[in-house]
Amino acid sequence: MIRKILVANRGEIAVRIIRSCRESGIRSVAIYSEPDRTSMHVRYADEAWLVGPGPSGQSYLNIPKILEIAKKSEVDAIHPGYGFLSENAEFAEKVRQAGLIFIGPEAEAIRTMGDKMKARELMIKAGVPVVPGSDKLSDDDEENQKIAEKTGYPIMIKASAGGGGKGMRFVESKEELNDAIKRAKSEALNAFGDDAVYIEKYLKSPHHIEVQILGDEHGNVVHLFERECSVQRRHQKVVEETPSPFITEEVRKAMTDRAVAAAASVKYAGAGTVEFLVDADMNFYFLEMNTRLQVEHPITERTTGVDLVKAQIRIANGEPLAFKQQDIRKLGHAIECRIYAEDPDNNFMPGAGRVLHITEPLGLGVRTDGYIYEGYDITVFYDPMISKLIIWAQNREEAVERMKRALYEYKITGVKTNIQFLERIMNTPEFREGKYDTHFIANNEDYLLKGEKCQQECEDLAMIMAYVDHQSNTDKRLKFTTHQYQKSNWKEYGRLHRFNPF
Amino acid sequence: MIRKILVANRGEIAVRIIRSCRESGIRSVAIYSEPDRTSMHVRYADEAWLVGPGPSGQSYLNIPKILEIAKKSEVDAIHPGYGFLSENAEFAEKVRQAGLIFIGPEAEAIRTMGDKMKARELMIKAGVPVVPGSDKLSDDDEENQKIAEKTGYPIMIKASAGGGGKGMRFVESKEELNDAIKRAKSEALNAFGDDAVYIEKYLKSPHHIEVQILGDEHGNVVHLFERECSVQRRHQKVVEETPSPFITEEVRKAMTDRAVAAAASVKYAGAGTVEFLVDADMNFYFLEMNTRLQVEHPITERTTGVDLVKAQIRIANGEPLAFKQQDIRKLGHAIECRIYAEDPDNNFMPGAGRVLHITEPLGLGVRTDGYIYEGYDITVFYDPMISKLIIWAQNREEAVERMKRALYEYKITGVKTNIQFLERIMNTPEFREGKYDTHFIANNEDYLLKGEKCQQECEDLAMIMAYVDHQSNTDKRLKFTTHQYQKSNWKEYGRLHRFNPF
Repeated sequence: MIRKILVANRGEIAVRIIRSCRESGIRSVAIYSEPDRTSMHVRYADEAWLVGPGPSGQSYLNIPKILEIAKKSEVDAIHPGYGFLSENAEFAEKVRQAGLIFIGPEAEAIRTMGDKMKARELMIKAGVPVVPGSDKLSDDDEENQKIAEKTGYPIMIKASAGGGGKGMRFVESKEELNDAIKRAKSEALNAFGDDAVYIEKYLKSPHHIEVQILGDEHGNVVHLFERECSVQRRHQKVVEETPSPFITEEVRKAMTDRAVAAAASVKYAGAGTVEFLVDADMNFYFLEMNTRLQVEHPITERTTGVDLVKAQIRIANGEPLAFKQQDIRKLGHAIECRIYAEDPDNNFMPGAGRVLHITEPLGLGVRTDGYIYEGYDITVFYDPMISKLIIWAQNREEAVERMKRALYEYKITGVKTNIQFLERIMNTPEFREGKYDTHFIANNEDYLLKGEKCQQECEDLAMIMAYVDHQSNTDKRLKFTTHQYQKSNWKEYGRLHRFNPF
Repeated sequence: MIRKILVANRGEIAVRIIRSCRESGIRSVAIYSEPDRTSMHVRYADEAWLVGPGPSGQSYLNIPKILEIAKKSEVDAIHPGYGFLSENAEFAEKVRQAGLIFIGPEAEAIRTMGDKMKARELMIKAGVPVVPGSDKLSDDDEENQKIAEKTGYPIMIKASAGGGGKGMRFVESKEELNDAIKRAKSEALNAFGDDAVYIEKYLKSPHHIEVQILGDEHGNVVHLFERECSVQRRHQKVVEETPSPFITEEVRKAMTDRAVAAAASVKYAGAGTVEFLVDADMNFYFLEMNTRLQVEHPITERTTGVDLVKAQIRIANGEPLAFKQQDIRKLGHAIECRIYAEDPDNNFMPGAGRVLHITEPLGLGVRTDGYIYEGYDITVFYDPMISKLIIWAQNREEAVERMKRALYEYKITGVKTNIQFLERIMNTPEFREGKYDTHFIANNEDYLLKGEKCQQECEDLAMIMAYVDHQSNTDKRLKFTTHQYQKSNWKEYGRLHRFNPF
């Protein structure tokens, strides 16, 4: 029976876990690095222990020190959150060796899913589709032609040791193949000292869609539907929503079925996410399985009503799941925007500095999971995500409008944020209509980054004007409409961007 | 078609209405009194106009001035919120005479429901049970005996002109009746100059339960289930929840049926609430009908998913309701706590002053509807309610725990609040078990007001201690548990009550 949990994490996810502990009558222990001394998770936990200096390697990744604190603070269990040690099989093992409960799956499951080739083999065995492709290619041109033919054009040539586009080639037809392989090999050799390349099917306008699953130690596995995570910038998710506006009910059924089968095949116990790539024809392929809580888990919590952290704790306690598949229903539509301290106008450079003012959006259908507050110093040591804004509404259209309203209310000064960038995403026709794939941000960069001043900016300027009028204390119209504003003296205030009213 | 709305209100409800306008693409016009110049509703509206000095009579109740602003700002409609002019039939009439849409029912419906005797007659006609009782009693002892007999003992004698307990008598049996009537009459004469008294059935451990209804101009009326509002202090609601933990499904069905019948009988178009008194045997009696949005409407929004302000606007637009009765489902459990700027330890004296610090609770299942912010000056002119904390969870037990978690996180300094009082309500066995009636607060005053220091206080003190340790910057245990704390030096910090950490 878990009565006290050490949260081996920081930021919003540590706060989020501590909240579920408090609601469950479980005592919580925070760990914190030196620069995190005044962080929200320290404030909200029942106890907090210094774990080390700022750099993660010396603090949030310092396994011996974390285990030492766990022992001293007499906890029963450790929750790793996401990132940091959450998918570190060695950590999971050591926690268990120390006689503590690791809130997550068995080390073996973490290890298997962390090895892309092993995971792929496992999925094939479990009947889960994977992206068609080959092993390492030989120098036999004819053999390679056959493999490519079987995979089906267009294909990609990728470096086995690769990453960052090096040794990568897009091949549309048979004629281009042999030459492309040669070039890719030579590039791979130069870049990685290894000329091994392989063939993978090229997916046209792919979607990133994932399925939330929960499994317990008694062999029960259920899914909590999918999340559409195709709004990405450099493979970093920015906006997520559920249900996916793209897939049909039939595809949803097939995907969730396969995700449950995948988890069941490894007797998975814990919360996990099976990620799929889905092509324009709605064929779906296994991408990877994350053996931890996902950043975007709150949208699933909102549409299904399930507290995923409490479910994790229950599973770690050895209890069976509190519900069966048929009890899990979804209602309405939820969208999450990740708020980053970064400067979209300056190549998304992560920001650091003191938060001077923050107004968080509130009211109907709005949830924020954050950890910063006025006076908080954002450091350069950790991920720049400072908050998650989660919106629920009866349908997608209303959810988008509510998200726009909430982003409009969200004011942070002192550090640059991507709030305006997110507002522009909401105003993009592709997003509004739910017709986007993983190329969405790249395709819309002109508008998202360098386009006209968006509505928000104009309204901010109108508010500045309001402030000026305000001081004059008359009963005349206090605010200008955006339109009126643009006609009048907005250039005068053009250098100002965001503004803390009154 | 409504494109621009003047919100004839202030505080949280003005902000709440403006939010729904923004989400619907409707422009909003705020009015504000001089002390409300920097209020949140001014900040969030598209336009804001000064309406007059602080006192309501000269500002938020100033009908000619409000109509003048409506004309100047070219709005199509006026939303009155709750309180102020929301149940003023004359205002509704004048708004319509000015060619504007009043977002609320017909003036006639407001007028009828505002007259308690007329409303009672109407309900009897519509087959809605009312509290059994008599007209003005005569001096005929025998006749009075008959009336009392028919009503059924125990009964109350009440002064027609009465209030405040004057001229009121509790009568358990026939023998006491005539004497009680004499005494009540003489008391009533002294107090009000009118000796008229009447008989009303005495309800044992009554519950205050109300039904939310929506009606449109096309004759459709639906209910959105009930709200249990029995946690009251001097007839002022403090905590509300839905569903009621008291009534059975059968009684729920009967009550909601009768509420719909009541609204249908007056061809009610708009949002309204039919309030019932429910006795220990679950007999329910019409109390009154409120022809406006209710303070506690968000708990209904949370369990049904319906945005009640958007529904009001839709109805005012002449559109039919967007759903039928069978489409309205309820899910889970919601509780609202009203946060007042008042001092429970000092006879609930309303507080005024500058808000120095505010930390609002966030995260899963938490909604706050407020309007204050750091630096805001709370004035003495208006209602001391500064915020509403609305919690949702899968079931009542989890909702109570989540409410406790949220109240724990809620920190306001600069003005006294009832947050700790609310925490104590949550910790009361009667409330936890859902076994309470309208006498709950009065019955538990000892604990709620003068009892032992509650958990929250201890934890606050622990946080102060944490802060002290914190400064010393070592890796020792940062926080004491409550228990340890009580054993150590908590008296030293005993004079401090609430505290803004870090």
